[in-house]
Amino acid sequence: MMTISLIGSGNLAQHLIVAFQNAEKSGSAIRLIQVFARQKEKLTHLLHQDKITTDYTELKEADLYIIAVSDDAIKSISSQLSFQNRLVVHTSGAVAMDTLDNKNRKGVFYPLQTFTKNKAVDFKTIPICLETENTNDYAVIEKVAQTISDAVYKIDSEQRKALHVAAVFVNNFSNHLYQIGNEICNNNQIPFSILQPLIQETAQKIIDLSPQEAQTGPAIRNDQNTIAAHQALLTHENHKNIYTILTQSIQNNGKKL
Amino acid sequence: MMTISLIGSGNLAQHLIVAFQNAEKSGSAIRLIQVFARQKEKLTHLLHQDKITTDYTELKEADLYIIAVSDDAIKSISSQLSFQNRLVVHTSGAVAMDTLDNKNRKGVFYPLQTFTKNKAVDFKTIPICLETENTNDYAVIEKVAQTISDAVYKIDSEQRKALHVAAVFVNNFSNHLYQIGNEICNNNQIPFSILQPLIQETAQKIIDLSPQEAQTGPAIRNDQNTIAAHQALLTHENHKNIYTILTQSIQNNGKKL
Repeated sequence: MMTISLIGSGNLAQHLIVAFQNAEKSGSAIRLIQVFARQKEKLTHLLHQDKITTDYTELKEADLYIIAVSDDAIKSISSQLSFQNRLVVHTSGAVAMDTLDNKNRKGVFYPLQTFTKNKAVDFKTIPICLETENTNDYAVIEKVAQTISDAVYKIDSEQRKALHVAAVFVNNFSNHLYQIGNEICNNNQIPFSILQPLIQETAQKIIDLSPQEAQTGPAIRNDQNTIAAHQALLTHENHKNIYTILTQSIQNNGKKL
Repeated sequence: MMTISLIGSGNLAQHLIVAFQNAEKSGSAIRLIQVFARQKEKLTHLLHQDKITTDYTELKEADLYIIAVSDDAIKSISSQLSFQNRLVVHTSGAVAMDTLDNKNRKGVFYPLQTFTKNKAVDFKTIPICLETENTNDYAVIEKVAQTISDAVYKIDSEQRKALHVAAVFVNNFSNHLYQIGNEICNNNQIPFSILQPLIQETAQKIIDLSPQEAQTGPAIRNDQNTIAAHQALLTHENHKNIYTILTQSIQNNGKKL
């Protein structure tokens, strides 16, 4: 039986609580024994209040402590822990493992997904990227990760940094392109819902094809007439800049299919 | 009974043939009576060869002629038609309705989706954007469109131009961001499959939230440390430029949630 203590009460922490509880119910050899939250009431809809503590000195002994808080708070919280030589991991894609305080054994438990409050996720499909300072500890977090996910990866700190940047491109930046599409629709009295099926299919297409194979449009076709017409139509200077730089980028590195 | 004649044998033409055939089978009051293809053998897996013609002068009378060919060929093909005063539409998001030859009644029948060869699509969910020169003709193409899609929109030429640009942002450009994510993974010995669930969830998230509400990441949080770390990590000049311009764009127009 592996015992887990979770520190945090935000979006990711809540999704992890649900995932660990489901794993327990389905017979996995783990137990979420305690959760630290500054405000108990943020978690009482998920946990009996006896399992919630607001005091670091009350944290019970566990095989694994998962710090699921904002990037900025990881360093400070890990140094406030009142025990030592236990296994403590954070859940961030952007923060180095070394940021954790030296008094405990370090590791990273990074679920690579965008979490929305109140929207259930199927944790089984979410990649969890693992790293530990000590080889022996890897087996512990791997076992825990496998109780909630079917996609567990060993990713070192250098890889994780790169992966986090890649995630910014495919998630943050793609979403921003959706927003620009939304704005163009709004400015022309077109319902944004008309673009929804295209957005879904664009994402699904690359399950079967590589993005390079899936690339279509005026840039990859080198269709100068359409590109010029689009640029003329984009009166918003920022939209025009983004259009131009992404068109050039497609043309510089893509091959026509 | 509405009779349809289709001109073209490419990707979209083939998907339309399948969609119209399915609509016929399920009892819709339409009939695809003939298809023009320069090479018959491109369509013989879909249609009896008696229904395929390679000669414009053999095109039979129909209520609606749909020209589903590449943008560049629309003008020339519409002028090669040997009849007049019939309803002729094209299927392009980027070409003006007026590009069609004056001898026939003009319209546009634009399915807003990305079509992949040999990948079946559910046409019912694909938005079809309609426009006609004459009001009476609108009822004809609306009726036809409704036999294959549940998402039929009246979109005029100005709106369609804007919609096509918006589609470039959410489809062509998002896919290019996936490709950059893929390249970053390759350069760091990370399997691209690790980003797949994030890409799918990013697209699905905006079914329930607006893109503005769904925006997360260092740019919208104004997390300068992470942004600087990402920029330092991006050694590919083009990737760095795209990172910077999209980060600025998010910061200039987004509100922190």
